[in-house]
Amino acid sequence: MRRFSSRCSDFIPTEYTNIKPFLPSLPPPPVGPDGTPVGPEALSVLFPSGMIEHEVTLEPRVPIPEKVLDAYKVYRPSPLIRAVELERFLDTPAHIYYKYEGTNPAGSHKSNTALPQAYFAAQDGITRITTETGAGQWGSALSQACNMFDLDLDVFMVRSSYLQKPLRKTFINMHGGRVCASPSDRTESGRKFLSEDSEHPGSLGIAISEAVEVVLTESKSCYSLGSVSDAVCLHQSIIGQESILQMEEMGEYPTEIIGCVGGGSNFAGIAFPFIEKMLTGGGHIDFTAVEPTVCPTLTEGKLKYDFGDASGLTPKYMMYTLGAGFVPPPIHAGGLRYHGMAPLVSHLVKLGLVNPVAYEQKRVLAAGKEFTQIEGILPAPESTHAITAAIDSALAAKETGENKVILFNLSGHGYLDLAAYVNA
Amino acid sequence: MRRFSSRCSDFIPTEYTNIKPFLPSLPPPPVGPDGTPVGPEALSVLFPSGMIEHEVTLEPRVPIPEKVLDAYKVYRPSPLIRAVELERFLDTPAHIYYKYEGTNPAGSHKSNTALPQAYFAAQDGITRITTETGAGQWGSALSQACNMFDLDLDVFMVRSSYLQKPLRKTFINMHGGRVCASPSDRTESGRKFLSEDSEHPGSLGIAISEAVEVVLTESKSCYSLGSVSDAVCLHQSIIGQESILQMEEMGEYPTEIIGCVGGGSNFAGIAFPFIEKMLTGGGHIDFTAVEPTVCPTLTEGKLKYDFGDASGLTPKYMMYTLGAGFVPPPIHAGGLRYHGMAPLVSHLVKLGLVNPVAYEQKRVLAAGKEFTQIEGILPAPESTHAITAAIDSALAAKETGENKVILFNLSGHGYLDLAAYVNA
Repeated sequence: MRRFSSRCSDFIPTEYTNIKPFLPSLPPPPVGPDGTPVGPEALSVLFPSGMIEHEVTLEPRVPIPEKVLDAYKVYRPSPLIRAVELERFLDTPAHIYYKYEGTNPAGSHKSNTALPQAYFAAQDGITRITTETGAGQWGSALSQACNMFDLDLDVFMVRSSYLQKPLRKTFINMHGGRVCASPSDRTESGRKFLSEDSEHPGSLGIAISEAVEVVLTESKSCYSLGSVSDAVCLHQSIIGQESILQMEEMGEYPTEIIGCVGGGSNFAGIAFPFIEKMLTGGGHIDFTAVEPTVCPTLTEGKLKYDFGDASGLTPKYMMYTLGAGFVPPPIHAGGLRYHGMAPLVSHLVKLGLVNPVAYEQKRVLAAGKEFTQIEGILPAPESTHAITAAIDSALAAKETGENKVILFNLSGHGYLDLAAYVNA
Repeated sequence: MRRFSSRCSDFIPTEYTNIKPFLPSLPPPPVGPDGTPVGPEALSVLFPSGMIEHEVTLEPRVPIPEKVLDAYKVYRPSPLIRAVELERFLDTPAHIYYKYEGTNPAGSHKSNTALPQAYFAAQDGITRITTETGAGQWGSALSQACNMFDLDLDVFMVRSSYLQKPLRKTFINMHGGRVCASPSDRTESGRKFLSEDSEHPGSLGIAISEAVEVVLTESKSCYSLGSVSDAVCLHQSIIGQESILQMEEMGEYPTEIIGCVGGGSNFAGIAFPFIEKMLTGGGHIDFTAVEPTVCPTLTEGKLKYDFGDASGLTPKYMMYTLGAGFVPPPIHAGGLRYHGMAPLVSHLVKLGLVNPVAYEQKRVLAAGKEFTQIEGILPAPESTHAITAAIDSALAAKETGENKVILFNLSGHGYLDLAAYVNA
């Protein structure tokens, strides 16, 4: 056994890096019901002002607020680990690295954006945040962040995950957050879907509708989104920034970067800083975004304007989508059950800079179990999609003899998802 | 909010540090049924040769085997964090630090000794390890280590914890380990306790009896112990060694060190390297060992020779004990339900170097929940005992105005123990 890791860097980013000014073109802006672009002011009914600034900025570097940086310092940098045991098991010439976000306090990359979102809400005098969550990673991270910044939190958790992962509710409650299964009877959107099916499994799109509906009727309240938006992609850039330095410390540079995609944020986090480097004269990298076959947004969806939620309460975004009404079957990777995709990730796919693939649940969970046995780290079901693609790529390198350096994002741990592995 | 952490040190210990040569006297040796000291050869029916060397060595520094060091490099150093938010909440002049072992792959400090124990077994050509586990942290860590070194593993898990924490079984199974509830019908010891009570809650002492009984009847098999022994305390010294350097990086030195105690290993890990410093001219430190009131080994037990297990299969050790037959009531902190105490920790209590205290479950779980809300890290129920003592000490400093610097060991995360907090 010989493994290496780089977690000892003194480097913690002090700025978010913004991919937008480096792109050959920008994605079309979000539009309102009349088809005209939605400006920052229209977003102010939902989001704190700091978040709107982060959503629209074209600055290449955006300072991280000091209080957010202090919170990052508690758990960052996250480790970057060379998967030497996995390489040996696969008998591949490829070098495989993973950036492990599971050591974050809430157990996933979601803390990276939960903290600035709660901070900006508190800055604006907001007292309560309402949000959706899929598998519960986002709700967990936001409940911690809200507790730190003294905010109330209401979470609409997709029912299929709510039933699969009961300890997520306990975790969120511990931090003072409230959770209910979505669709719920608390909103018009929820009641509509419940009337169609009283055991409705829910979806991220429906949960977003419920959260947005609540916020639109309340003062001193805001909505918070765990993925998809440009601001969230900006916040997650700290993952890729750290990875660049950590890969330098390892004396290597990736030839392929892989992340799982639901809304797109953990993929954006690890990929965008490397895409910036590539677009400004750095070496070529293949970027692979991995989604579940039951929610094949990038591989089978259409690039068009669509609502971010199931009830049409949000602006329309130019993104790959399966249709706002699409309800994926329940899978353990609840965080990937989203009908759309981050407009920035969608745009990069359109530009040919990111290559999407889809994998089946059975296969990724088996790979996740294998990875746990081999590398000693238990991944979230979402992250097993990235693991499986990394394994496939490493096996392909074995066929061709190519000297690949693969880096993937292990976006969270699977302790609260263990039931997913019982029959894997 | 302002917090600090030191996790970025390049320092990973390359040697274990041994408290024994620095003590004014050594604990009396273990003895056999006839009362005469048990030599290394008598231990060889249970333990690999490398473990026996670590058990008896009087060398002040013991090299960490290279393959074990490689595994440590994946997850160490563990972070040392200043609990600035907790300090503010308590409005105390005390500075509070915690060493967080929950980022280890199996979620607790247990990996630190699981890895060398599995390594030494593999070195001796052993193919199967049998062990006990309380709350499951030790079984989890050893299942990972056995998987890394290609060994089979059988775990006797104390029944009360087996029922409270079902995901532990899933976790151990994922790594190829087998688990059964103890007392079981697989051993004479187990059948004896089951015949007394078919719903017997079990204890660590009974589970050790079962594991030892199995090993005594098998070849190419060894027993592995998660705490108590001198060798385990030696392995855990990497916690304290890292803490010394990390506290230096923070520009402070502790005036009090706190750890929870069941068998004593996580306390020994953080305390012994600092005790060595104190005994060799360093500043005075108060050392506090915290146990549950329902298993008050140090605060109400007697210092005498007693068996390590419930059926009298092990040698007798000079230790504080409640009697080998003592069965504590089921509590969530299953890792602390042991009738005895590490002979080295017992000896330090006798010498007056370590001060024992006991806390009730209700109080420590409430403190654990509060800590989670304030510091954003979810502790194992065992670790909440240390948290509670740290809070009490910080509040005492508020009364006296004393400039305390408190360091406690947060020995593991509580993700798989979340049910403990539902009513906390």
